[in-house]
Amino acid sequence: MALPTLPDIAFLHHLADIADAQTMPRYRTGLAVDTKFKEGYTFDPVTEADREAEIAIRAEISARYPDHAIVGEELGKTGSGPCCWVLDPVDGTRPFICGIPVWGTLIGFMIDGRAELGMMSQPFTGERFWADSDGAWSERVGKRERLATRNVGRLSQAILHTTSPEHYRGDIRQGFDRLAASVRMTRYGGECYAIAMLAAGRIDLAVEPSLQPYDIVALIPIIEKAGGVVTRLDGERAEAGGPVLVSATPDLHAEALRLLNGGA
Amino acid sequence: MALPTLPDIAFLHHLADIADAQTMPRYRTGLAVDTKFKEGYTFDPVTEADREAEIAIRAEISARYPDHAIVGEELGKTGSGPCCWVLDPVDGTRPFICGIPVWGTLIGFMIDGRAELGMMSQPFTGERFWADSDGAWSERVGKRERLATRNVGRLSQAILHTTSPEHYRGDIRQGFDRLAASVRMTRYGGECYAIAMLAAGRIDLAVEPSLQPYDIVALIPIIEKAGGVVTRLDGERAEAGGPVLVSATPDLHAEALRLLNGGA
Repeated sequence: MALPTLPDIAFLHHLADIADAQTMPRYRTGLAVDTKFKEGYTFDPVTEADREAEIAIRAEISARYPDHAIVGEELGKTGSGPCCWVLDPVDGTRPFICGIPVWGTLIGFMIDGRAELGMMSQPFTGERFWADSDGAWSERVGKRERLATRNVGRLSQAILHTTSPEHYRGDIRQGFDRLAASVRMTRYGGECYAIAMLAAGRIDLAVEPSLQPYDIVALIPIIEKAGGVVTRLDGERAEAGGPVLVSATPDLHAEALRLLNGGA
Repeated sequence: MALPTLPDIAFLHHLADIADAQTMPRYRTGLAVDTKFKEGYTFDPVTEADREAEIAIRAEISARYPDHAIVGEELGKTGSGPCCWVLDPVDGTRPFICGIPVWGTLIGFMIDGRAELGMMSQPFTGERFWADSDGAWSERVGKRERLATRNVGRLSQAILHTTSPEHYRGDIRQGFDRLAASVRMTRYGGECYAIAMLAAGRIDLAVEPSLQPYDIVALIPIIEKAGGVVTRLDGERAEAGGPVLVSATPDLHAEALRLLNGGA
């Protein structure tokens, strides 16, 4: 049996266009905010934008690739097989609600459980970040650039990001505090946009203590094709989510993992 | 002696244009980052953008209003008299360095120590936020909107913002924790952009534990003309900086001040 072929990146741009058409008209409007609760989060809003964008993306995928599975934040898993799309129509519903443009639409594609293609769209700033088999890329107002992480060398020179200090408990809290005390500065509140900036060489480390697959799958190829490293804190690949570390270089990753996991 | 007259808001837009021309070409470039240290901050980068923008704005003000005083983050105070410009060419040097567009150029104008005009420019998103004698406004791609805070009623419905959890010490730490435990959610990492979103009715409370005058003067008229309240935690006007609370409504402000200052 032949290996599945990768969808063309143009199809991911098409999906992102469709999502943008659902999210942008609802951004900074007075829409009602629904809430649901998940483990580890005290507040997780779900907006109409989230639901409508996922419905629209799913319809396009199902029409084009009826044999592909789809996992989405809003509507769960449908289908099965080696090819699986992983969707978070609005990653960063908190900044979306606050009017701060660090949210994004995440579209990932896996073969046999491994992330192979990924795209993030931020329609307010007009930015796309994606990875295909040639590398990782950003584009804004028609200007395309290759994404590449930077090498700051030592941990003491690194910029660390995490979305919120609230999501840390127990051992992970202590590990994060050790890491934060070792870096040049810690930045908060960037969501998927901060991961894109890590791929772009402007942030060096990112820790998120409890991700779902749809929070990270689309970002994995962008990080890896830009030269970065992303794993769970146990060192395993991050497609299944959990506590996740993203690093600009393998050396920083090893150093940061050691501190997060209890090393002095 | 006649009271000083307010400069036209068009002049503030002109100053913002001049600042944008210095900041934007340096945003997301590999410029060297200089550092300095201030009380309460472990890391406070100063970029070339910061310095060059302040030099350029000062030259324009001095040419047009040679008898006005100017206070700037980079170059201190020059001149004296009732009319004083207060400048922070890059408020949010951390997000500037990280490539996250929540920094802004702040241009404030005081008469006799009271903030009367203010502007924030975010050139990457193409946004301006300002207040003149008619009200508070935002503009993007030619679309102008009136800014107005919202009334969520109870504290338990409010969204709270602070830039970083790291800047809190002692009593202010405890007060902030009490407030954070009473609101619907807490958001981090928004800098001046979060204050603009408070004025726009998307965030309800903002606390910053140690502001300088140039961090807040330009934002005071924007908050007040949008219907919000801004004071120091001792209840005094915020032009002198210090620990500052910004609220969407007078009622929320009173409730939040009480919690911040030790009330149960």
